[in-house]
Amino acid sequence: MIKAIVFDAYGTLYDIESLSSVTDDAFPGHGEAVTQIWRLKQLEYSWLRSLMGRYEDFASVTRDSLAYTLRVLGLECEAGVFENILEKYVRLELYPGVEDTLLSMRDKQLAILSNGSPDMLNNLVRNTGLDRVLDAVISIDGQRIYKPSPEAYAIIESSLAIKPSEVMFVSSNPFDVCGAKSFGMNVTWIERVTGDAMARDWVGGDVATPGKMFKALRSHMDELGFSPDYRIPTLGDLPNVVAASDRQSKS
Amino acid sequence: MIKAIVFDAYGTLYDIESLSSVTDDAFPGHGEAVTQIWRLKQLEYSWLRSLMGRYEDFASVTRDSLAYTLRVLGLECEAGVFENILEKYVRLELYPGVEDTLLSMRDKQLAILSNGSPDMLNNLVRNTGLDRVLDAVISIDGQRIYKPSPEAYAIIESSLAIKPSEVMFVSSNPFDVCGAKSFGMNVTWIERVTGDAMARDWVGGDVATPGKMFKALRSHMDELGFSPDYRIPTLGDLPNVVAASDRQSKS
Repeated sequence: MIKAIVFDAYGTLYDIESLSSVTDDAFPGHGEAVTQIWRLKQLEYSWLRSLMGRYEDFASVTRDSLAYTLRVLGLECEAGVFENILEKYVRLELYPGVEDTLLSMRDKQLAILSNGSPDMLNNLVRNTGLDRVLDAVISIDGQRIYKPSPEAYAIIESSLAIKPSEVMFVSSNPFDVCGAKSFGMNVTWIERVTGDAMARDWVGGDVATPGKMFKALRSHMDELGFSPDYRIPTLGDLPNVVAASDRQSKS
Repeated sequence: MIKAIVFDAYGTLYDIESLSSVTDDAFPGHGEAVTQIWRLKQLEYSWLRSLMGRYEDFASVTRDSLAYTLRVLGLECEAGVFENILEKYVRLELYPGVEDTLLSMRDKQLAILSNGSPDMLNNLVRNTGLDRVLDAVISIDGQRIYKPSPEAYAIIESSLAIKPSEVMFVSSNPFDVCGAKSFGMNVTWIERVTGDAMARDWVGGDVATPGKMFKALRSHMDELGFSPDYRIPTLGDLPNVVAASDRQSKS
Protein backbone atom coordinates (compact mmCIF):
# COMPACT_ATOMS: atom_id res chain seq x y z
CA MET A 1 0.00 0.00 0.00
CA ILE A 2 1.10 3.55 -0.74
CA LYS A 3 1.64 5.45 2.53
CA ALA A 4 3.17 8.64 1.13
CA ILE A 5 2.99 10.58 -2.11
CA VAL A 6 6.17 12.54 -2.70
CA PHE A 7 6.35 15.21 -5.37
CA ASP A 8 9.17 16.83 -7.24
CA ALA A 9 8.67 20.62 -7.08
CA TYR A 10 10.14 22.54 -10.04
CA GLY A 11 8.42 21.56 -13.27
CA THR A 12 6.09 19.12 -11.50
CA LEU A 13 3.94 21.10 -9.05
CA TYR A 14 5.36 24.48 -10.10
CA ASP A 15 5.47 25.77 -13.66
CA ILE A 16 9.02 26.80 -14.56
CA GLU A 17 7.66 28.54 -17.65
CA SER A 18 6.17 31.14 -15.29
CA LEU A 19 9.71 32.52 -15.02
CA SER A 20 9.24 33.90 -18.53
CA SER A 21 7.13 36.80 -17.24
CA VAL A 22 10.08 38.29 -15.34
CA THR A 23 12.78 37.31 -17.85
CA ASP A 24 10.84 38.85 -20.71
CA ASP A 25 10.19 42.03 -18.73
CA ALA A 26 13.91 42.33 -18.06
CA PHE A 27 15.04 41.38 -21.58
CA PRO A 28 12.23 42.01 -24.06
CA GLY A 29 12.32 39.49 -26.88
CA HIS A 30 14.84 37.28 -25.09
CA GLY A 31 12.67 35.95 -22.23
CA GLU A 32 12.27 32.53 -23.75
CA ALA A 33 15.98 32.04 -24.46
CA VAL A 34 16.92 33.18 -20.96
CA THR A 35 14.31 30.97 -19.28
CA GLN A 36 15.18 27.82 -21.20
CA ILE A 37 18.97 28.08 -21.19
CA TRP A 38 18.86 29.01 -17.50
CA ARG A 39 16.84 25.90 -16.61
CA LEU A 40 19.01 23.63 -18.78
CA LYS A 41 22.20 24.91 -17.17
CA GLN A 42 20.75 24.94 -13.64
CA LEU A 43 20.19 21.17 -13.78
CA GLU A 44 23.54 20.60 -15.56
CA TYR A 45 25.30 22.44 -12.73
CA SER A 46 23.48 20.37 -10.09
CA TRP A 47 24.74 17.20 -11.80
CA LEU A 48 28.26 18.47 -12.48
CA ARG A 49 28.81 19.83 -8.96
CA SER A 50 27.53 16.54 -7.53
CA LEU A 51 29.94 14.57 -9.71
CA MET A 52 32.86 16.87 -8.94
CA GLY A 53 32.19 16.56 -5.21
CA ARG A 54 31.77 20.36 -5.10
CA TYR A 55 28.28 20.79 -3.71
CA GLU A 56 26.82 24.27 -3.41
CA ASP A 57 23.16 24.74 -2.54
CA PHE A 58 20.48 25.21 -5.18
CA ALA A 59 20.20 28.94 -4.52
CA SER A 60 23.87 29.26 -5.58
CA VAL A 61 23.46 26.94 -8.55
CA THR A 62 20.39 28.91 -9.66
CA ARG A 63 22.27 32.20 -9.37
CA ASP A 64 25.35 30.86 -11.20
CA SER A 65 23.33 29.39 -14.04
CA LEU A 66 21.46 32.68 -14.52
CA ALA A 67 24.79 34.54 -14.62
CA TYR A 68 26.06 32.05 -17.23
CA THR A 69 22.89 32.46 -19.31
CA LEU A 70 23.06 36.26 -19.45
CA ARG A 71 26.78 36.17 -20.28
CA VAL A 72 26.35 33.69 -23.11
CA LEU A 73 23.47 35.67 -24.62
CA GLY A 74 25.37 38.96 -24.30
CA LEU A 75 22.70 40.44 -22.01
CA GLU A 76 23.39 42.79 -19.13
CA CYS A 77 21.27 44.19 -16.34
CA GLU A 78 21.50 46.05 -13.06
CA ALA A 79 21.95 44.10 -9.85
CA GLY A 80 18.39 44.88 -8.78
CA VAL A 81 16.95 43.39 -11.97
CA PHE A 82 19.10 40.27 -11.56
CA GLU A 83 17.86 39.81 -7.97
CA ASN A 84 14.28 40.39 -9.08
CA ILE A 85 14.54 37.57 -11.63
CA LEU A 86 16.00 35.21 -9.02
CA GLU A 87 13.30 36.18 -6.55
CA LYS A 88 10.65 34.78 -8.89
CA TYR A 89 11.85 31.32 -7.79
CA VAL A 90 9.95 31.75 -4.53
CA ARG A 91 6.81 32.93 -6.39
CA LEU A 92 6.51 30.39 -9.20
CA GLU A 93 3.00 29.58 -10.35
CA LEU A 94 1.40 26.29 -9.46
CA TYR A 95 0.08 24.19 -12.32
CA PRO A 96 -3.74 24.39 -12.45
CA GLY A 97 -5.59 22.22 -9.93
CA VAL A 98 -2.60 21.28 -7.78
CA GLU A 99 -4.17 22.24 -4.46
CA ASP A 100 -7.46 20.44 -5.14
CA THR A 101 -5.66 17.29 -6.27
CA LEU A 102 -3.52 17.25 -3.15
CA LEU A 103 -6.54 17.88 -0.89
CA SER A 104 -8.30 14.86 -2.41
CA MET A 105 -5.47 12.56 -1.28
CA ARG A 106 -5.08 13.63 2.33
CA ASP A 107 -5.47 10.04 3.53
CA LYS A 108 -1.78 9.66 2.52
CA GLN A 109 1.23 11.59 3.73
CA LEU A 110 1.97 14.32 1.19
CA ALA A 111 5.49 15.69 0.75
CA ILE A 112 7.87 17.45 -1.60
CA LEU A 113 11.38 16.17 -2.28
CA SER A 114 13.30 18.81 -4.18
CA ASN A 115 16.77 19.96 -5.14
CA GLY A 116 15.78 23.40 -3.85
CA SER A 117 17.51 24.73 -0.77
CA PRO A 118 15.38 24.81 2.40
CA ASP A 119 14.86 28.58 2.22
CA MET A 120 13.85 28.54 -1.44
CA LEU A 121 11.39 25.71 -0.85
CA ASN A 122 9.85 26.94 2.36
CA ASN A 123 9.27 30.40 0.94
CA LEU A 124 7.81 29.01 -2.27
CA VAL A 125 5.48 26.63 -0.47
CA ARG A 126 4.29 29.33 1.93
CA ASN A 127 3.84 31.95 -0.80
CA THR A 128 1.65 29.57 -2.78
CA GLY A 129 -0.35 28.23 0.17
CA LEU A 130 0.83 24.64 -0.13
CA ASP A 131 2.10 24.74 3.47
CA ARG A 132 -1.54 24.18 4.47
CA VAL A 133 -1.71 20.94 2.47
CA LEU A 134 1.72 19.30 2.64
CA ASP A 135 2.91 17.21 5.58
CA ALA A 136 6.59 17.72 4.79
CA VAL A 137 8.89 19.74 2.53
CA ILE A 138 12.16 17.87 2.14
CA SER A 139 15.30 19.35 0.59
CA ILE A 140 18.23 17.24 -0.63
CA ASP A 141 20.44 19.92 0.95
CA GLY A 142 21.11 17.79 4.03
CA GLN A 143 22.74 15.15 1.79
CA ARG A 144 24.84 17.66 -0.19
CA ILE A 145 24.27 15.76 -3.43
CA TYR A 146 21.55 16.32 -6.02
CA LYS A 147 19.03 14.05 -7.68
CA PRO A 148 19.30 11.54 -9.32
CA SER A 149 21.87 10.30 -6.77
CA PRO A 150 20.39 7.56 -4.59
CA GLU A 151 21.61 9.50 -1.54
CA ALA A 152 19.20 12.32 -2.48
CA TYR A 153 16.20 9.96 -2.60
CA ALA A 154 17.27 8.20 0.60
CA ILE A 155 16.32 11.27 2.61
CA ILE A 156 12.63 10.48 2.06
CA GLU A 157 12.89 7.33 4.19
CA SER A 158 14.92 9.02 6.91
CA SER A 159 12.53 12.02 7.02
CA LEU A 160 9.17 10.24 6.82
CA ALA A 161 10.09 6.80 8.21
CA ILE A 162 8.44 5.22 5.16
CA LYS A 163 10.07 2.59 2.95
CA PRO A 164 10.71 3.27 -0.77
CA SER A 165 8.20 0.52 -1.69
CA GLU A 166 5.48 2.44 0.20
CA VAL A 167 6.14 5.73 -1.62
CA MET A 168 4.54 6.96 -4.83
CA PHE A 169 7.05 9.42 -6.27
CA VAL A 170 5.66 11.89 -8.79
CA SER A 171 7.74 13.90 -11.25
CA SER A 172 7.47 15.38 -14.70
CA ASN A 173 11.28 15.35 -15.11
CA PRO A 174 12.42 12.20 -16.93
CA PHE A 175 15.86 12.07 -15.22
CA ASP A 176 14.08 12.27 -11.87
CA VAL A 177 11.64 9.49 -12.82
CA CYS A 178 14.60 7.25 -13.75
CA GLY A 179 16.51 8.14 -10.60
CA ALA A 180 13.52 7.43 -8.34
CA LYS A 181 12.76 4.18 -10.14
CA SER A 182 16.41 3.11 -9.91
CA PHE A 183 16.18 3.79 -6.17
CA GLY A 184 13.18 1.47 -5.82
CA MET A 185 10.13 3.68 -5.41
CA ASN A 186 6.79 3.46 -7.21
CA VAL A 187 6.94 6.22 -9.79
CA THR A 188 4.37 8.21 -11.74
CA TRP A 189 5.55 10.34 -14.63
CA ILE A 190 3.53 13.41 -15.58
CA GLU A 191 4.06 13.45 -19.33
CA ARG A 192 3.01 17.00 -20.15
CA VAL A 193 4.40 16.90 -23.71
CA THR A 194 3.47 13.74 -25.58
CA GLY A 195 5.98 12.16 -27.93
CA ASP A 196 3.65 12.48 -30.90
CA ALA A 197 3.09 16.18 -30.31
CA MET A 198 6.81 16.77 -30.03
CA ALA A 199 7.68 14.84 -33.18
CA ARG A 200 4.99 16.76 -35.11
CA ASP A 201 6.46 19.97 -33.80
CA TRP A 202 9.89 19.11 -35.21
CA VAL A 203 8.86 17.63 -38.52
CA GLY A 204 6.21 20.29 -39.20
CA GLY A 205 7.96 23.42 -37.96
CA ASP A 206 11.05 24.97 -39.54
CA VAL A 207 12.15 27.10 -36.65
CA ALA A 208 13.99 25.68 -33.67
CA THR A 209 13.09 27.91 -30.73
CA PRO A 210 14.83 27.60 -27.35
CA GLY A 211 11.54 26.29 -25.93
CA LYS A 212 11.40 23.56 -28.54
CA MET A 213 15.01 22.59 -27.79
CA PHE A 214 14.19 22.47 -24.08
CA LYS A 215 11.28 20.13 -24.72
CA ALA A 216 13.38 17.95 -27.00
CA LEU A 217 16.06 17.66 -24.32
CA ARG A 218 14.04 17.38 -21.13
CA SER A 219 10.41 16.33 -21.70
CA HIS A 220 10.78 12.92 -23.29
CA MET A 221 11.39 9.74 -21.27
CA ASP A 222 15.13 9.12 -21.08
CA GLU A 223 17.03 6.04 -22.21
CA LEU A 224 18.59 5.24 -18.85
CA GLY A 225 17.30 1.71 -18.40
CA PHE A 226 14.25 2.60 -16.28
CA SER A 227 10.58 3.31 -16.98
CA PRO A 228 7.85 4.83 -14.80
CA ASP A 229 5.17 2.55 -13.35
CA TYR A 230 2.48 4.99 -14.43
CA ARG A 231 2.35 7.85 -16.91
CA ILE A 232 -0.39 10.50 -16.81
CA PRO A 233 -0.91 13.67 -18.87
CA THR A 234 -1.77 15.92 -15.91
CA LEU A 235 -1.58 15.87 -12.13
CA GLY A 236 -5.38 15.61 -11.95
CA ASP A 237 -5.12 11.95 -12.96
CA LEU A 238 -2.96 11.07 -9.97
CA PRO A 239 -5.70 10.06 -7.49
CA ASN A 240 -6.88 7.37 -9.94
CA VAL A 241 -3.34 6.06 -10.32
CA VAL A 242 -2.82 5.87 -6.56
CA ALA A 243 -6.15 4.10 -6.08
CA ALA A 244 -5.24 1.61 -8.81
CA SER A 245 -1.86 1.00 -7.23
CA ASP A 246 -3.50 0.34 -3.84
CA ARG A 247 -6.04 -2.07 -5.37
CA GLN A 248 -3.22 -3.94 -7.11
CA SER A 249 -1.21 -4.35 -3.90
CA LYS A 250 -4.31 -5.64 -2.07
CA SER A 251 -5.06 -8.31 -4.67
CA MET B 1 57.71 21.22 -15.08
CA ILE B 2 55.08 19.65 -17.31
CA LYS B 3 55.90 15.98 -17.88
CA ALA B 4 52.74 14.92 -19.71
CA ILE B 5 50.16 16.59 -21.93
CA VAL B 6 46.83 14.85 -21.67
CA PHE B 7 44.04 15.59 -24.14
CA ASP B 8 40.33 15.15 -24.06
CA ALA B 9 39.28 13.40 -27.30
CA TYR B 10 35.73 14.22 -28.46
CA GLY B 11 35.39 17.90 -29.30
CA THR B 12 39.04 18.61 -28.45
CA LEU B 13 41.21 16.58 -30.85
CA TYR B 14 38.27 15.22 -32.84
CA ASP B 15 35.56 17.33 -34.43
CA ILE B 16 32.14 16.14 -33.28
CA GLU B 17 30.56 18.26 -36.02
CA SER B 18 31.97 15.76 -38.50
CA LEU B 19 29.10 13.47 -37.43
CA SER B 20 26.80 15.74 -39.42
CA SER B 21 27.90 14.17 -42.71
CA VAL B 22 26.38 10.80 -41.76
CA THR B 23 23.39 12.16 -39.86
CA ASP B 24 22.43 14.44 -42.74
CA ASP B 25 22.81 11.61 -45.25
CA ALA B 26 20.50 9.48 -43.15
CA PHE B 27 17.99 12.25 -42.36
CA PRO B 28 18.20 15.00 -44.99
CA GLY B 29 17.46 18.38 -43.47
CA HIS B 30 17.66 17.03 -39.90
CA GLY B 31 21.38 16.30 -39.64
CA GLU B 32 22.12 19.31 -37.47
CA ALA B 33 19.29 18.62 -35.01
CA VAL B 34 20.28 14.95 -34.73
CA THR B 35 23.97 15.73 -34.23
CA GLN B 36 23.47 18.41 -31.59
CA ILE B 37 20.71 16.78 -29.55
CA TRP B 38 22.63 13.49 -29.66
CA ARG B 39 25.78 15.10 -28.29
CA LEU B 40 23.88 17.03 -25.60
CA LYS B 41 22.09 13.89 -24.42
CA GLN B 42 25.21 11.70 -24.66
CA LEU B 43 26.99 13.84 -22.07
CA GLU B 44 23.84 14.18 -19.95
CA TYR B 45 23.55 10.40 -19.84
CA SER B 46 27.20 10.04 -18.82
CA TRP B 47 26.56 12.41 -15.88
CA LEU B 48 23.20 10.93 -14.92
CA ARG B 49 24.38 7.31 -15.03
CA SER B 50 27.41 8.28 -12.95
CA LEU B 51 25.21 9.98 -10.36
CA MET B 52 22.71 7.11 -10.29
CA GLY B 53 25.54 4.61 -9.79
CA ARG B 54 24.39 2.86 -12.99
CA TYR B 55 27.49 2.95 -15.15
CA GLU B 56 27.30 1.63 -18.69
CA ASP B 57 30.21 2.15 -21.06
CA PHE B 58 30.33 5.04 -23.52
CA ALA B 59 29.45 2.84 -26.47
CA SER B 60 26.14 2.06 -24.74
CA VAL B 61 25.57 5.67 -23.70
CA THR B 62 26.26 6.79 -27.27
CA ARG B 63 23.82 4.24 -28.67
CA ASP B 64 21.11 5.10 -26.11
CA SER B 65 21.41 8.83 -26.69
CA LEU B 66 21.13 8.36 -30.47
CA ALA B 67 18.01 6.23 -29.94
CA TYR B 68 16.55 8.97 -27.72
CA THR B 69 17.35 11.64 -30.30
CA LEU B 70 15.67 9.87 -33.20
CA ARG B 71 12.62 9.09 -31.06
CA VAL B 72 12.21 12.67 -29.90
CA LEU B 73 12.52 14.03 -33.43
CA GLY B 74 10.09 11.44 -34.80
CA LEU B 75 12.75 10.01 -37.15
CA GLU B 76 13.05 6.34 -38.06
CA CYS B 77 15.66 4.32 -39.92
CA GLU B 78 16.70 0.77 -40.65
CA ALA B 79 19.06 -0.99 -38.27
CA GLY B 80 21.88 -0.79 -40.81
CA VAL B 81 21.59 2.99 -41.08
CA PHE B 82 21.56 3.32 -37.27
CA GLU B 83 24.73 1.23 -37.00
CA ASN B 84 26.35 3.22 -39.79
CA ILE B 85 25.75 6.48 -37.89
CA LEU B 86 27.22 5.00 -34.69
CA GLU B 87 30.21 3.66 -36.61
CA LYS B 88 31.22 7.23 -37.52
CA TYR B 89 32.39 7.55 -33.90
CA VAL B 90 35.52 5.55 -34.79
CA ARG B 91 36.12 7.67 -37.92
CA LEU B 92 35.67 11.21 -36.61
CA GLU B 93 37.74 13.88 -38.28
CA LEU B 94 40.70 15.42 -36.50
CA TYR B 95 40.75 19.19 -36.16
CA PRO B 96 43.28 20.69 -38.63
CA GLY B 97 46.92 20.49 -37.57
CA VAL B 98 46.47 18.10 -34.65
CA GLU B 99 49.18 15.65 -35.74
CA ASP B 100 51.79 18.36 -36.42
CA THR B 101 51.09 20.03 -33.08
CA LEU B 102 51.46 16.77 -31.20
CA LEU B 103 54.67 15.89 -33.09
CA SER B 104 56.20 19.24 -32.06
CA MET B 105 55.79 18.34 -28.36
CA ARG B 106 57.26 14.86 -28.33
CA ASP B 107 59.65 15.76 -25.53
CA LYS B 108 56.62 15.30 -23.22
CA GLN B 109 54.49 12.24 -22.72
CA LEU B 110 51.39 12.61 -24.85
CA ALA B 111 48.13 10.90 -23.92
CA ILE B 112 44.36 10.96 -24.31
CA LEU B 113 42.00 10.72 -21.33
CA SER B 114 38.48 10.17 -22.59
CA ASN B 115 35.01 8.99 -21.60
CA GLY B 116 35.15 6.74 -24.66
CA SER B 117 35.21 2.99 -24.12
CA PRO B 118 38.58 1.32 -24.86
CA ASP B 119 37.36 -0.17 -28.16
CA MET B 120 35.90 3.13 -29.39
CA LEU B 121 39.08 5.01 -28.54
CA ASN B 122 41.59 2.50 -29.83
CA ASN B 123 39.78 2.18 -33.15
CA LEU B 124 39.44 5.94 -33.52
CA VAL B 125 43.08 6.59 -32.71
CA ARG B 126 44.27 3.88 -35.10
CA ASN B 127 41.93 4.93 -37.91
CA THR B 128 43.22 8.49 -37.72
CA GLY B 129 46.91 7.63 -37.34
CA LEU B 130 47.32 9.13 -33.86
CA ASP B 131 48.55 5.76 -32.54
CA ARG B 132 51.92 6.68 -34.08
CA VAL B 133 52.11 9.89 -32.01
CA LEU B 134 50.47 9.18 -28.65
CA ASP B 135 52.20 7.41 -25.78
CA ALA B 136 48.95 6.33 -24.12
CA VAL B 137 45.21 6.22 -24.73
CA ILE B 138 43.42 6.12 -21.39
CA SER B 139 39.72 5.39 -20.97
CA ILE B 140 37.76 6.20 -17.81
CA ASP B 141 36.09 2.81 -18.29
CA GLY B 142 38.29 1.15 -15.67
CA GLN B 143 36.88 3.53 -13.05
CA ARG B 144 33.24 3.04 -14.12
CA ILE B 145 32.45 6.71 -13.56
CA TYR B 146 32.59 9.56 -16.07
CA LYS B 147 34.26 12.95 -16.09
CA PRO B 148 34.08 15.33 -14.26
CA SER B 149 34.29 12.91 -11.30
CA PRO B 150 37.73 13.11 -9.64
CA GLU B 151 37.92 9.31 -9.90
CA ALA B 152 37.92 9.65 -13.69
CA TYR B 153 40.89 12.05 -13.66
CA ALA B 154 42.75 9.97 -11.06
CA ILE B 155 43.39 7.30 -13.67
CA ILE B 156 45.97 9.57 -15.34
CA GLU B 157 48.29 9.31 -12.35
CA SER B 158 47.82 5.57 -11.97
CA SER B 159 48.38 4.99 -15.71
CA LEU B 160 51.31 7.33 -16.37
CA ALA B 161 52.85 7.53 -12.87
CA ILE B 162 52.80 11.32 -13.17
CA LYS B 163 51.39 13.67 -10.54
CA PRO B 164 48.46 16.02 -11.36
CA SER B 165 50.73 19.05 -10.88
CA GLU B 166 53.01 17.73 -13.67
CA VAL B 167 50.18 17.30 -16.16
CA MET B 168 48.88 19.85 -18.66
CA PHE B 169 45.31 18.80 -19.34
CA VAL B 170 43.79 20.14 -22.56
CA SER B 171 40.10 20.27 -23.34
CA SER B 172 37.63 22.37 -25.29
CA ASN B 173 34.75 21.21 -23.08
CA PRO B 174 34.10 23.69 -20.24
CA PHE B 175 32.77 21.08 -17.79
CA ASP B 176 35.94 19.05 -18.41
CA VAL B 177 38.15 22.10 -17.85
CA CYS B 178 36.43 22.73 -14.51
CA GLY B 179 36.63 19.08 -13.49
CA ALA B 180 40.34 18.83 -14.31
CA LYS B 181 41.08 22.10 -12.53
CA SER B 182 39.09 20.99 -9.48
CA PHE B 183 41.20 17.83 -9.48
CA GLY B 184 44.43 19.87 -9.38
CA MET B 185 45.93 19.68 -12.86
CA ASN B 186 47.28 22.51 -15.00
CA VAL B 187 44.55 23.14 -17.55
CA THR B 188 44.39 24.72 -20.98
CA TRP B 189 41.01 25.50 -22.48
CA ILE B 190 40.65 25.57 -26.24
CA GLU B 191 38.01 28.26 -26.64
CA ARG B 192 36.85 27.60 -30.17
CA VAL B 193 33.81 29.89 -29.94
CA THR B 194 34.57 33.25 -28.37
CA GLY B 195 32.02 34.84 -26.09
CA ASP B 196 31.75 37.93 -28.29
CA ALA B 197 31.04 35.89 -31.40
CA MET B 198 28.38 33.92 -29.57
CA ALA B 199 26.63 36.97 -28.12
CA ARG B 200 26.60 38.62 -31.59
CA ASP B 201 25.09 35.44 -32.96
CA TRP B 202 22.20 35.60 -30.48
CA VAL B 203 21.52 39.27 -30.61
CA GLY B 204 21.74 39.40 -34.40
CA GLY B 205 19.93 36.22 -35.43
CA ASP B 206 16.28 35.41 -34.84
CA VAL B 207 16.46 31.66 -35.13
CA ALA B 208 17.80 29.44 -32.35
CA THR B 209 19.17 26.61 -34.48
CA PRO B 210 20.16 23.40 -32.69
CA GLY B 211 23.80 24.27 -33.43
CA LYS B 212 23.42 27.67 -31.84
CA MET B 213 21.73 26.12 -28.79
CA PHE B 214 24.57 23.61 -28.51
CA LYS B 215 27.14 26.40 -28.56
CA ALA B 216 25.15 28.40 -25.99
CA LEU B 217 25.01 25.40 -23.68
CA ARG B 218 28.45 23.83 -24.09
CA SER B 219 31.05 26.22 -25.54
CA HIS B 220 31.18 28.97 -22.93
CA MET B 221 33.20 28.68 -19.72
CA ASP B 222 30.95 27.34 -16.99
CA GLU B 223 30.16 28.97 -13.66
CA LEU B 224 31.38 26.11 -11.49
CA GLY B 225 33.94 27.95 -9.42
CA PHE B 226 37.00 27.09 -11.54
CA SER B 227 38.87 28.74 -14.40
CA PRO B 228 41.46 27.38 -16.82
CA ASP B 229 45.10 28.39 -16.37
CA TYR B 230 45.36 29.14 -20.09
CA ARG B 231 42.85 29.75 -22.84
CA ILE B 232 43.79 29.48 -26.51
CA PRO B 233 41.67 29.77 -29.68
CA THR B 234 43.15 26.71 -31.44
CA LEU B 235 45.29 23.70 -30.60
CA GLY B 236 48.17 25.19 -32.64
CA ASP B 237 48.82 27.63 -29.78
CA LEU B 238 49.43 24.86 -27.28
CA PRO B 239 53.25 24.48 -27.68
CA ASN B 240 53.67 28.16 -26.72
CA VAL B 241 51.49 27.69 -23.64
CA VAL B 242 53.42 24.63 -22.51
CA ALA B 243 56.74 26.42 -23.03
CA ALA B 244 55.46 29.40 -21.03
CA SER B 245 54.30 27.12 -18.24
CA ASP B 246 57.71 25.43 -18.10
CA ARG B 247 59.53 28.77 -18.04
CA GLN B 248 57.28 29.93 -15.19
CA SER B 249 57.94 26.85 -13.08
CA LYS B 250 61.72 27.25 -13.59
CA SER B 251 61.79 30.87 -12.47
